[in-house]
Amino acid sequence: MTFESISDVAAALRAFAAERDWDRFHTPKNLAAAMSVEASEVLEHFQWLTNAESSALDAQKKEEVAMELADVFLYLVRLSDRLGVDLLRSAERKMAINAKNYPADFTKGAIRKRT
Amino acid sequence: MTFESISDVAAALRAFAAERDWDRFHTPKNLAAAMSVEASEVLEHFQWLTNAESSALDAQKKEEVAMELADVFLYLVRLSDRLGVDLLRSAERKMAINAKNYPADFTKGAIRKRT
Amino acid sequence: MTFESISDVAAALRAFAAERDWDRFHTPKNLAAAMSVEASEVLEHFQWLTNAESSALDAQKKEEVAMELADVFLYLVRLSDRLGVDLLRSAERKMAINAKNYPADFTKGAIRKRT
Amino acid sequence: MTFESISDVAAALRAFAAERDWDRFHTPKNLAAAMSVEASEVLEHFQWLTNAESSALDAQKKEEVAMELADVFLYLVRLSDRLGVDLLRSAERKMAINAKNYPADFTKGAIRKRT
Repeated sequence: MTFESISDVAAALRAFAAERDWDRFHTPKNLAAAMSVEASEVLEHFQWLTNAESSALDAQKKEEVAMELADVFLYLVRLSDRLGVDLLRSAERKMAINAKNYPADFTKGAIRKRT
Repeated sequence: MTFESISDVAAALRAFAAERDWDRFHTPKNLAAAMSVEASEVLEHFQWLTNAESSALDAQKKEEVAMELADVFLYLVRLSDRLGVDLLRSAERKMAINAKNYPADFTKGAIRKRT
Repeated sequence: MTFESISDVAAALRAFAAERDWDRFHTPKNLAAAMSVEASEVLEHFQWLTNAESSALDAQKKEEVAMELADVFLYLVRLSDRLGVDLLRSAERKMAINAKNYPADFTKGAIRKRT
Repeated sequence: MTFESISDVAAALRAFAAERDWDRFHTPKNLAAAMSVEASEVLEHFQWLTNAESSALDAQKKEEVAMELADVFLYLVRLSDRLGVDLLRSAERKMAINAKNYPADFTKGAIRKRT
């Protein structure tokens, strides 16, 4: 299986669920729960590390984290597909909002929101 | 700003952080925490809904959820970029693992893993 | 080991960490991450269940969930202890706030906040 | 309202939910989701802080975090009550398991589990 785009991933997940009769489990509510569980599994790898250690994972650990990141990605794409949300278009809109809320000159060197 | 691919998003986030001197905040550890917080904000929209209600959001609610999904996506892309993880390649590898762990005939109509 | 109160739990956790030189790992930031990871492990047990199934766990599943709830509780007590927060007093204050935000006649039969 | 024990909190939450007809929302599944959302709101306060900063909150920030910790505590007590789980007894059992998995001499100065 080769993915060239997010749409390819969404199509593969649709087929995967259909073959298993999983659509009734894959409600937006359940998928949102599953995605948050997977995001915590990513965090679990980092919870006792220093910031420096978290930036210097060895190859085995990096692959483990990559598989957890893939889980978040798969649920994110599946949930967005079920809701009819386009991730790239939504990211464009959110980046525009972020640019307004965090102007470079105001927030430089700190993370603070202009309210 | 127009995104045609995940790489476009990663490049935009790199520039956004550089302009704000945020690289020192954007350690993998901190980004993993932020991503899990955003995934919970998605879940918060669904926590008291029934499965049926979660599948029938009105337009305003859907846009709110889309902006939360965008937050998860942005942190996921940024974290993967910081770690040198390719999301599409990782998703391919994870889907192959899932196909082995959840064979269609074994798991049909239930979500259960072959151990 | 017998616990009669939250203070007993806090004291036991202090001793447990001291014997293992874990105080340097047990910063509020790290404990907050660990607590959220454990809360997700509770949720993982319920993510594909219906509401009805989630109310009718068998004995083995119930014990597994009880051990995950204990993990959340232990990190919650440890984190509160490290911050100097009294959980019972904080719960009293929060319940008073909730009573104002969710007046019984306003919110009856729905979960909605008076703003 | 004065709480002297976890049982007092559980009783108050039972009455609070009954007055609002919230029992149908307060399924174990929904409460587990709500608890994980609140745990993330605790983490959100710490996500961009250094470990040192997370140990030195000012009074206002500390009270904000205390109210988030209270939210986790309230959902934890409510969920345990709905499941018939005794938190103090469960914490005793879990601490005994932890003592075996993390022997002081083996794990001193690192967090690693004996497998």
